[in-house]
Amino acid sequence: MQTPLRLGIAGLGTVGTGLLDVLKQNGALLSGQSGRDIVVTGVCARTKSTERGGHSLAEYRWFDDAGDLAAWDEIDVFVELIGGDSGPALDSVETALRSAKHVVTANKAMIAHHGTRLAKLAESNGVSLQFEAAIAGGIPIVKVVRESLAGNNITRVYGIMNGTCNYILTEMDKERRDFADVLATAQELGYAETDPSFDVGGIDAAHKIACLTSLAFGVETSFESIFIEGIEDITLSDIQNAAELGYKIKLMAVAVQTDEGIEQRVHPTLVPKGSPIAEVDGVFNAVGLSGDFVHDILMHGKGAGGHPTASSVISDIVDIARGSKMPVYGLPATQLKPYTRAPMRAHEGGYYVAMDLYDKPGTVAFIAQTFSDENISIESILQRSPATNAIEEANDELKPFIMISHDTMESRMRAALTKISETDHCAGQPKMIRIERF
Amino acid sequence: MQTPLRLGIAGLGTVGTGLLDVLKQNGALLSGQSGRDIVVTGVCARTKSTERGGHSLAEYRWFDDAGDLAAWDEIDVFVELIGGDSGPALDSVETALRSAKHVVTANKAMIAHHGTRLAKLAESNGVSLQFEAAIAGGIPIVKVVRESLAGNNITRVYGIMNGTCNYILTEMDKERRDFADVLATAQELGYAETDPSFDVGGIDAAHKIACLTSLAFGVETSFESIFIEGIEDITLSDIQNAAELGYKIKLMAVAVQTDEGIEQRVHPTLVPKGSPIAEVDGVFNAVGLSGDFVHDILMHGKGAGGHPTASSVISDIVDIARGSKMPVYGLPATQLKPYTRAPMRAHEGGYYVAMDLYDKPGTVAFIAQTFSDENISIESILQRSPATNAIEEANDELKPFIMISHDTMESRMRAALTKISETDHCAGQPKMIRIERF
Repeated sequence: MQTPLRLGIAGLGTVGTGLLDVLKQNGALLSGQSGRDIVVTGVCARTKSTERGGHSLAEYRWFDDAGDLAAWDEIDVFVELIGGDSGPALDSVETALRSAKHVVTANKAMIAHHGTRLAKLAESNGVSLQFEAAIAGGIPIVKVVRESLAGNNITRVYGIMNGTCNYILTEMDKERRDFADVLATAQELGYAETDPSFDVGGIDAAHKIACLTSLAFGVETSFESIFIEGIEDITLSDIQNAAELGYKIKLMAVAVQTDEGIEQRVHPTLVPKGSPIAEVDGVFNAVGLSGDFVHDILMHGKGAGGHPTASSVISDIVDIARGSKMPVYGLPATQLKPYTRAPMRAHEGGYYVAMDLYDKPGTVAFIAQTFSDENISIESILQRSPATNAIEEANDELKPFIMISHDTMESRMRAALTKISETDHCAGQPKMIRIERF
Repeated sequence: MQTPLRLGIAGLGTVGTGLLDVLKQNGALLSGQSGRDIVVTGVCARTKSTERGGHSLAEYRWFDDAGDLAAWDEIDVFVELIGGDSGPALDSVETALRSAKHVVTANKAMIAHHGTRLAKLAESNGVSLQFEAAIAGGIPIVKVVRESLAGNNITRVYGIMNGTCNYILTEMDKERRDFADVLATAQELGYAETDPSFDVGGIDAAHKIACLTSLAFGVETSFESIFIEGIEDITLSDIQNAAELGYKIKLMAVAVQTDEGIEQRVHPTLVPKGSPIAEVDGVFNAVGLSGDFVHDILMHGKGAGGHPTASSVISDIVDIARGSKMPVYGLPATQLKPYTRAPMRAHEGGYYVAMDLYDKPGTVAFIAQTFSDENISIESILQRSPATNAIEEANDELKPFIMISHDTMESRMRAALTKISETDHCAGQPKMIRIERF
């Protein structure tokens, strides 16, 4: 048996105490799997407390400063569970890597913003930088992309990677409730923060797809290039209309290789009912990949929570304990290609369009002609009288007009909708939601 | 860049030519990921042919005998794609391991029967034995269990791991066709062999669960201990009855840790509609795991086919090229615990029961009393007059009686059904199908 692997843990929230739980509960198993003991030598957290989740911290050296722990001689691995894309998390990780300590982190924001640079720093210092826990909690997608799908040219990676949004959309659908109403419940249950904008606005999912894009396509991380739309404007009517047309609405994060570069986008998305991704409900996450040899793979599991996330943290630690050496992104970071952004106007796909039309002769003909002029063909239309529509306070003169287009280019769809909104046929702005096919 | 990794490939069927495809098509990617080139130096197959799937074999050294290739000095990795649990496959793999060559194999039968012994041989010779491709084609379940779920005590591993059976059951359900009819179509389409017993009898799925049991629970492989029932006796009526009661019927392979040991079983299984596993249709596979920290994970993908399976073979090869060293089953093979079999009579779960009862006073009362005597409680009953039942040639006097039990012990259910079959209330033998809950 080799010498023990010594951990310094910075951050003792739910994931940090989850990590202490797994080390305590499954210590013997971990030693057997690693061929050596895994021990905590030092810890650091915002507030010192003698007791955390039943764990006494007395036997660990306490550090007030994460950077001091990161530089301490008596750790082999610095486990960063502080969070945030800069500040103490980033500073201490840089210190650890420069001190030739391995780093394991659950910090998606930091990896999304600084991943490429940190990977180069890790590799030039001959240490690992692992972030399995940063993406989709317990789902081991990082290892699967980096190792299991080595040899595949990945063409698309996608997923439902924000449990808050998926919970809200699922509840809206199943309980026929409004966004604001379900959001309030999610906040009461602890599934949503007091300021929910980070989740419902799509930023959290964008951090995750930024990390996956580098892994899947071998390119430098470019969070700034992601097209982001949140779910705040999705109404119960949209969900019901989509259902009637054979779709569910999910917040999807997608990265696709196109002829023009890589498209990275996070937005509410119609997915065909019956496709495996459409059946991912509630707080669950799922991540899928398409590759030229493996074809399609989808992984489903708990995307958050102290224990599932700690499961991913410990797997990274066991990798290090076993002596596994792997470039951070599968390829050496110096070989990552520059990211080339495919513009959203060149995006090709189907669209759900909803608008309120004035009920007068010639309106539908005008709409149909406008789409036809842009070479957009219509897959299906749903037009109902206001009485049967769920929209409240419907204006008697207005008729909701819902349609699904066949695949077209986003610039064409935007042009058609702009043209329509500039006439007096349509009240307010038409709404457009993208469709993803599987 | 290190020296190239040299492969000797034995077996050039669909997976072998798939492997040549990926090496040719994605060679540059593989070199970047591995830090070295991956080259084929020798090949061996049943019949020599100058051309295979567009690949010329002229540049490789040809071997008539797999054992000679396995022992050849100019290979680093022996890739065994011959198949079969003994004979040339086993002999050549043993030769390769003794000659300190790494082995990559897609051979589930060999690993199911000889896995523990071969793992010890590999580890004592300081080489890898990898078999990602042996289980569920392109789904990277071996690496996920061995590495991503390190640190978890696994409590259950399960899956739909035979595409032939899943295709047949899906078609029976969707097209309302009989088993024999769909089997014939499957044979025409190449989804089923001329002699389909290996697939429909559950042996193939049993090979896969035997391998997963060792990985998940750290025990020696014990194929002989698996309880196996095939799908040959599943009727369209069973599928329709199950649907009416809220279930789908799938051929599941399951291994569970119980107080009495490990239960390994392959049998037709009712799974609740709406659970992710129930939505796995057609030739797709899915494998799921429950662990004490990760909770539940399910992976969905192509379970067969030359390219998806080659994707798994190449990931094992890249692992070796990258210098990854890992015990075959996560724990050193000498530390695997002996397998302790939990007897099927101690199995606890729900049951679907179908029988034809003679339509006379006292029959249902007798049935209900018999279950009650065995402490079995009934979740739901479906009793229809023969006219509305799909069974053809129904005897006028017979009434189909279908029921779902709450969880009970298998010995109790068997006792109740034996008692019932020994009376004159029931025509023929009652049928029982196990239920798996998620």
